Formats: sequence, C-alpha cells, structure tokens
Amino acid sequence: MSESGTPSTPAEVLAGNDVLQRREHAAIIGAGVIGASWTALFLAHGMEVRVTDPDPDAERKVRSLIDEAAPTLSALGLPTAGIYDRLRFVDDLADAVAGADIVQENGPEKVKFKRSLWSSIEQSAPPHALFLSSTSGILATSMAKEMTDPTRLLIGHPFNPPHLVPLVEIVPGEQTAAQCVDEAVAFYTALGKRPLVLHKEIPGFVANRLQAAMFQECVHLVASGVVGMDELDEVVTSSLGPRWAAGGPFVSFHLGGGTGGFEHFLTHLGPGMEYIWKNRLGHPSFDEETTTYLIEDLHRAYGDRTIDELAAERDRLQVAILNALANSRPQPSTN
Amino acid sequence: MSESGTPSTPAEVLAGNDVLQRREHAAIIGAGVIGASWTALFLAHGMEVRVTDPDPDAERKVRSLIDEAAPTLSALGLPTAGIYDRLRFVDDLADAVAGADIVQENGPEKVKFKRSLWSSIEQSAPPHALFLSSTSGILATSMAKEMTDPTRLLIGHPFNPPHLVPLVEIVPGEQTAAQCVDEAVAFYTALGKRPLVLHKEIPGFVANRLQAAMFQECVHLVASGVVGMDELDEVVTSSLGPRWAAGGPFVSFHLGGGTGGFEHFLTHLGPGMEYIWKNRLGHPSFDEETTTYLIEDLHRAYGDRTIDELAAERDRLQVAILNALANSRPQPSTN
Repeated sequence: MSESGTPSTPAEVLAGNDVLQRREHAAIIGAGVIGASWTALFLAHGMEVRVTDPDPDAERKVRSLIDEAAPTLSALGLPTAGIYDRLRFVDDLADAVAGADIVQENGPEKVKFKRSLWSSIEQSAPPHALFLSSTSGILATSMAKEMTDPTRLLIGHPFNPPHLVPLVEIVPGEQTAAQCVDEAVAFYTALGKRPLVLHKEIPGFVANRLQAAMFQECVHLVASGVVGMDELDEVVTSSLGPRWAAGGPFVSFHLGGGTGGFEHFLTHLGPGMEYIWKNRLGHPSFDEETTTYLIEDLHRAYGDRTIDELAAERDRLQVAILNALANSRPQPSTN
Repeated sequence: MSESGTPSTPAEVLAGNDVLQRREHAAIIGAGVIGASWTALFLAHGMEVRVTDPDPDAERKVRSLIDEAAPTLSALGLPTAGIYDRLRFVDDLADAVAGADIVQENGPEKVKFKRSLWSSIEQSAPPHALFLSSTSGILATSMAKEMTDPTRLLIGHPFNPPHLVPLVEIVPGEQTAAQCVDEAVAFYTALGKRPLVLHKEIPGFVANRLQAAMFQECVHLVASGVVGMDELDEVVTSSLGPRWAAGGPFVSFHLGGGTGGFEHFLTHLGPGMEYIWKNRLGHPSFDEETTTYLIEDLHRAYGDRTIDELAAERDRLQVAILNALANSRPQPSTN
C-alpha cells in the first residue's frame, strides 16, 4: 500500500471499496468446493474472476455451486444478478494469473505440488499480485521454498463455506512482508470477512485445532454410548454453539466467574478443569469398531435426510445467525 | 403421570401448559446465580416460587438478578409484569418445600451436604414432588444415598444462565424412575428449555466435558503466543460458534464431507484428525507462569470493559441468536 493517494492502513479501506477497486482481478487456482465458494464470493463483490482447474468438469461444478450459493449470498445482502458476466474459465495456469491482482490457491494439500505451483504462478502473475493459499495444512514458509520472492505469499485459510462463514485465518510465512499481511487483511475485510492474523506459524492454525480438540471428546462420548450423535449435536446447538457465537471461550469464562471475572474462574474452577483435562477426557481413535459404530449411528441419526436438505438447513440457520449478530452489534464507524 | 385424564407422555404436554398447571409450585433451594436465574424463569412462566438460602442477603441478590434478567426474558417473549407477586422468601427448608410440585436444588457442590439436604427435603415435600438438582459435578446415584425413596431424584443441569440458554442436561441416577425422567423432560420443555437425557451417568455430563476439551487447546494456543485471548475469541465467534449454533459437530462433518458425507470425512480427514489428537494438541496446566500470563492477557484484551458491560453484550447477542434460530426453524406441530 505504498502508492501515494491510496489507503495505507486496513482501517482506511475497511468501509470503502478502494481495496476492491485496486484489486479487482482475481485468479482462482483449483476449483473444488472451497475454490468454487471463493469464486461465488469474489463475483458477488464485483470482482473479475478467472478460474482454472484440471478437472474437465470443473466449470459445470463451479456454476452449480454458485447457483446453490446465490440464495445465501442474497440473504447476506450481496448482489448476485449478472455475476456470471465476470467469470471466465481458462485451461492454462499462466493465462489464469496474468493480470491478476489476487491469486487464491485451493490446490491439493501436497507440499511438492504447491511448491511447484507457486513457482509457476510467480513467473506469470504481475509483480503486484498478492498470493493467498487456502491450505489448511501446509505452512507458507514451506510452500514458498521454490519461489524467487516469497514475500508476497501467505495463508488465507477460510472456514467452509468461505462465502458464508466470516473467519479467514491469515498466517504469514517467515519471509512474508508485513505490507502483504496488511493487504490481505484489507482485502478480506473488504469482502466482508473477519481476517485474523496468527502471531506464529503453527500446524492446523487455530480454528481446526480447536475443532479437533472438541471433536475428540464428541467421538468419545458417542462411541461410549453416553449420547447419540444427534443428541450430542443438540447439546451443542442449544448451549455451546449460541454461547460461542455471542462470545468466545475466554470472555465466556470471564463472565462465568461472576463479579470476580476470569481470576475467580481460574481460582475456583481452574483446578476442576485441570482435573478433567488430565483424568476425564477420552482418547478415542478411529479404529474399525469405532468407525463402524459411528457410521451406524450417523445413519440412525441423520439417515432419513439428504445431504442437500441438511446443508440447506445449516446454511439457512447460519445466515439467520450471522445476520442477527450483524444487526445486534454496534456498527463500526465508517470514518 | 398416572392420574386418569392427565397427559401421559411428554409429547402430550409439550405444547400446552398442562404440565405447568399441574406443577405450578416450585421450591428453589440455594439462590446463588443459578438458583436466582431459575427463579426468574419459573416466575416468568407463571409459577409460584418459594426460595430459601442461608445467605441473609439472598433476597436482595435474587431480586437484583431478576431485575437484570427481565429485559432478556422480555426479549425472549416472556411476560415479566407482576412476577414478584408470586415470589416468597422463606427461612426454613421444610417451609420452602411444603406444597412444592418441583424442587430445584442449587446448593454447594459437596456430596455429604447434598445427601443430607435431599434426605431433609424428602421428609417435608409432598409425595408427588419432583426432585431436580442443578449440580454440574455430583451424580444422582451418589446424591440419593440417604434418601428413603431415590426414584424421584435426578439431575436437571442447566447451562449458565438457565433463564437464557436452552440446554438442560437430564441425568437420571441408577434408581430414578423412568416416569420421573419423562416428567422432568415435560417440565423443562414447558419452560421453553431443551432437555436432553443422557444414557449413562458420567462425571461432567456432556456440555462441560466438551467445553473443557476445547478450552484445553484454547489455553495452549494463547499461552504459547499463537493468538491473544480476544483474537481466539474472535476466531470462535466468527467460525465455530455460528457453525455449532446452526448444527452440531457431527452433522457439520457429515456436511463437510460433501456428497460422500460422514463416511467420506472419516476416510479422508479421519487420519489427519487422529494425528492432531495424538501429536498436536497441547496439554497445558494452570501453573503459576500460565496463570499469570492468562490474567495479564485478559486485562489487555478485556480490561477496558466492565463485567456488566460484557455480560449485557453477551446476553443481547445470545437473545438475538436464539430468536433468529427460533424464527428460522420449522415450527413444531402443536397437535
């Protein structure tokens, strides 16, 4: 953001569309579920998008996913009319990234493949292009090993589906330039996302590690017959989910401590929680017995509804929640 | 529910107020934060409530909490006018439970104390009274050891605050009568709660174990400097919270597997998740260094806002979420 006259901090571009005016050409590399969802979101924000994917059926799949995403985008207040006018499918990687201001990569989670991919992208993209990887598993430092200039590559890891869930985890590599981190934050913010910059590169980042930690106990409780899958899901949707949509775990325990706050919590409930950590939590594995049990229970719990029905229900409820939160929070200043 | 002419299944009483007409007299034993919140909810549903607590200041505290809860109850669509008319504070336990249809106990989490308490309650309460404990840590089987008739005691464990969060975990003891479990389900359902019956007595029940499992990784990530507390909270409120308010962990992964569903998830992501469980997740403890770090970070993150401000914000957002969910879900049949 060094050009004169352009915003120089993420805050300056937060409310306006400046950042999307300067970064209006996107390349989507790899158009599976994540890439297609990004495509829908970018298009709904007025960007020109070139998509490339080796799957000969990719274009049909992407258009199908955009069609499915359209009601959600509309419900979130985004325009969807005419979005296909700004969408192009191209066969060639060099063609996809030529002229791109933003490259969002969603390729297979293989280190060697990504290293080679970014090296190729670097050779064809304009010098100002920002390189963002959707990877959930590979660090930017590792992925950038074959690049000439690794300063503009970083992780922009969404939570599925990216067109709906606000979080984007921004994880710079060791050589990522601070300015590129700011640019990525400004870019995702302009898309209505909530980018969060991690202070350290760590495998799994934050959200997936938290999810895995809780899911371990979920599997333990279901596999040991304490509750069925649908019952466990119901416990979560009627307690922890709404709680954590309103406030995260730390502020929740800060408030759970009453007037004594988090210090009271640590003193009075900390030892009990430590005891649960060390002595109570289960350590299941996906062995054959557990896997068989889980799949049977899944069929019992959700087998009478199709994936499409359940997904439509989830998206509808999530949109309702996100809109309720957006309408209930103090509006950020537009100055 | 054996009297002729009365509903005999929870479903029959779900929509109507029958259950609250038959169970309109409640005793609240122990009026800390949980007891006071139950009191507010019971009153808002038209029940007559007698409260007893050895704290000489209990009445003032309970009235203060009810005043604070009133806007939330109103926002949830419950009447709050004149609710104090049906509230009485009594000094004597026998007086509190005499004539009670429901006893909700919220005493200290000490086994011996609770055993003696329930034995006393049993001697003074009517034979038809249902005995419910808010305990989060003691099993009904253990708590009932000194009772003559342990069949009507069970756990009705709320999630804080009970007047707001839907979940109530119902945990029968070994000797709890099936009919009393049905009665408890019908009672909490009539209060607008979502009761969930556990199939096994297990320490910590379900929600608190899940919360502890995730919080272990939260503490690990903050204490190791990956994110600040407010940043971690922001990760959760912008991803896992809204996700899990719309659908629980199992249905979320069922949908995360695409058209292959949960089986695809298990095959393709299961091994990676198992790897995280075994090799990645942190195992922090609340040692002095960690505790000091956490408290400092709490002050940095939330120190500029009072507990009351943060709690009001949380309640406002939770009400918005719960109302959005209630308005978005298919309405249950009233037949």
